[in-house]
Amino acid sequence: MRPFCAAIDWGTSNFRLWLLDGNGGVIDETSSADGILKCGIDEFEQVTETHLAELGAPADLPVIISGMAGSRQGWAEARYIDTPAALDDVVRLAVSVPTARRSILILPGIAQRDAKRPDVMRGEETQLIGVAASGDMLACIPGTHSKWVQVKAGKVTEFYTFLTGELYSVISRNSILRHAVDTDHLDDDAFETAVAEALRDPGCLTASLFSIRAGQLLGFTNPGSGAARLSGLLIGCEIAAASKLYGHSRTTNLIASGKLAELYRTALAIAGHRVRIHDALQASRRGLWIAARQSFSNDPAVRKLG
Amino acid sequence: MRPFCAAIDWGTSNFRLWLLDGNGGVIDETSSADGILKCGIDEFEQVTETHLAELGAPADLPVIISGMAGSRQGWAEARYIDTPAALDDVVRLAVSVPTARRSILILPGIAQRDAKRPDVMRGEETQLIGVAASGDMLACIPGTHSKWVQVKAGKVTEFYTFLTGELYSVISRNSILRHAVDTDHLDDDAFETAVAEALRDPGCLTASLFSIRAGQLLGFTNPGSGAARLSGLLIGCEIAAASKLYGHSRTTNLIASGKLAELYRTALAIAGHRVRIHDALQASRRGLWIAARQSFSNDPAVRKLG
Repeated sequence: MRPFCAAIDWGTSNFRLWLLDGNGGVIDETSSADGILKCGIDEFEQVTETHLAELGAPADLPVIISGMAGSRQGWAEARYIDTPAALDDVVRLAVSVPTARRSILILPGIAQRDAKRPDVMRGEETQLIGVAASGDMLACIPGTHSKWVQVKAGKVTEFYTFLTGELYSVISRNSILRHAVDTDHLDDDAFETAVAEALRDPGCLTASLFSIRAGQLLGFTNPGSGAARLSGLLIGCEIAAASKLYGHSRTTNLIASGKLAELYRTALAIAGHRVRIHDALQASRRGLWIAARQSFSNDPAVRKLG
Repeated sequence: MRPFCAAIDWGTSNFRLWLLDGNGGVIDETSSADGILKCGIDEFEQVTETHLAELGAPADLPVIISGMAGSRQGWAEARYIDTPAALDDVVRLAVSVPTARRSILILPGIAQRDAKRPDVMRGEETQLIGVAASGDMLACIPGTHSKWVQVKAGKVTEFYTFLTGELYSVISRNSILRHAVDTDHLDDDAFETAVAEALRDPGCLTASLFSIRAGQLLGFTNPGSGAARLSGLLIGCEIAAASKLYGHSRTTNLIASGKLAELYRTALAIAGHRVRIHDALQASRRGLWIAARQSFSNDPAVRKLG
């Protein structure tokens, strides 16, 4: 079966490619650690073609890409669209890679050019398209750089990035807490207690972090609870801040997969949020497919309707 | 001139030794990066003797030590005294190193054995002795692990450790902010703005951190301001949390040296604290001398009076 397009989610440290049929169904897929950090400026096309060849993709198959591949350090810069940013414009303003031997489009990210709250996203806008954020929506997209995004009438009006995932990583690897955090082990009770603690007093984060180490040193907590406490404190702080910004009254659309989805669902419930879960990978893939259909279809009706 | 004693402040990553006269005056001093992390269990005596020999110290000169050398991973364990911990007891319960060829005493640290707020200190108790915290005092001791300590009637009743300095270090070295933070450069205005921002909304720390990177990416802030913003946000969060715990009504005794003393003085002033500054090195040295005088003096009156 001839695919309709190839869809690539190309981040800082990961590469993921799907061959999609005309209904957005997955024909085949592949992924690797070929994030843009690993690619020299001359290697983007080669990495793409190698993955396409591996899946036997036709030479003229069009490709749609989102993520850091569109950054200044990426393959071709797809400049940020500014908030309030219509998700339709993300598709409309996709940038063509001029040097490529096939049709390749890269979707732009979104920038919040507010001197008080400067912020940027690349990739999450595609997930929002994928979860059909055409109306109003509050989305929480956890990860290395967690995003909380407000969508109104199909436009990203405002968003905040939290360093949650990256703090978890550098603290558990590089700080004194590395002795107190076994990241292979997550104690559910300790996680929930830490979330509640952070929700009560998010300003105490930097003090609570040290107590993870001191608690083990003094024998109050077992070493296995360290990772859960660290994770709970950081996620709790993020949700406390986001709740203050956006309130609790609406449904929070959680775009996440696997363990992260579980942790955030639990933490959001403790914070009193109503949660609707969307699988993160599926959201990326579907967003890419919607953009591809609008961009590559020969049917003018499809192109117009999206 | 024959010294009265040698005083050693022996931390995780640093070693500092003073030869002191009978009035606590400095005859000579030396320091190195021989922190306890670098010392195998058999090397503590050798490191001490090498430094003493370098300064020509007599073979029977008594030595007093405070800091991590008294931890379980140190030379000889000087077990924590529990809060409420009389500073007098820190001196009284000093531990003698049994294997040493001269008289060597190590001062214990203090532990807060509270399941909700477990905490430990080693070294700061000596600084508190050094600044004559015999009555009531609120002390702020910035560093890798900043301490806020409440002393009542000569007893440490309660304290909190903030991971401020260590977070600054791991975030500026190991996170995405390493591209946005030039730690050699500190922009005073950016520091003060960030302190005020954190004081207003300490719960937003993890979101504010990412804005350092995004602000530079979007051209709102110059790269030189990154370190100042990171430092201001972390210190501001610490002071916000401490102010909530202890209030603003009393004088905060800031035990710090150099650039750190300046940054905290500025930040504490923005937060509305009255500040009294004590030099941190001098506080350590004086605390060690007070302990040595009580421990090593042949005059029973001095030993009793301290």
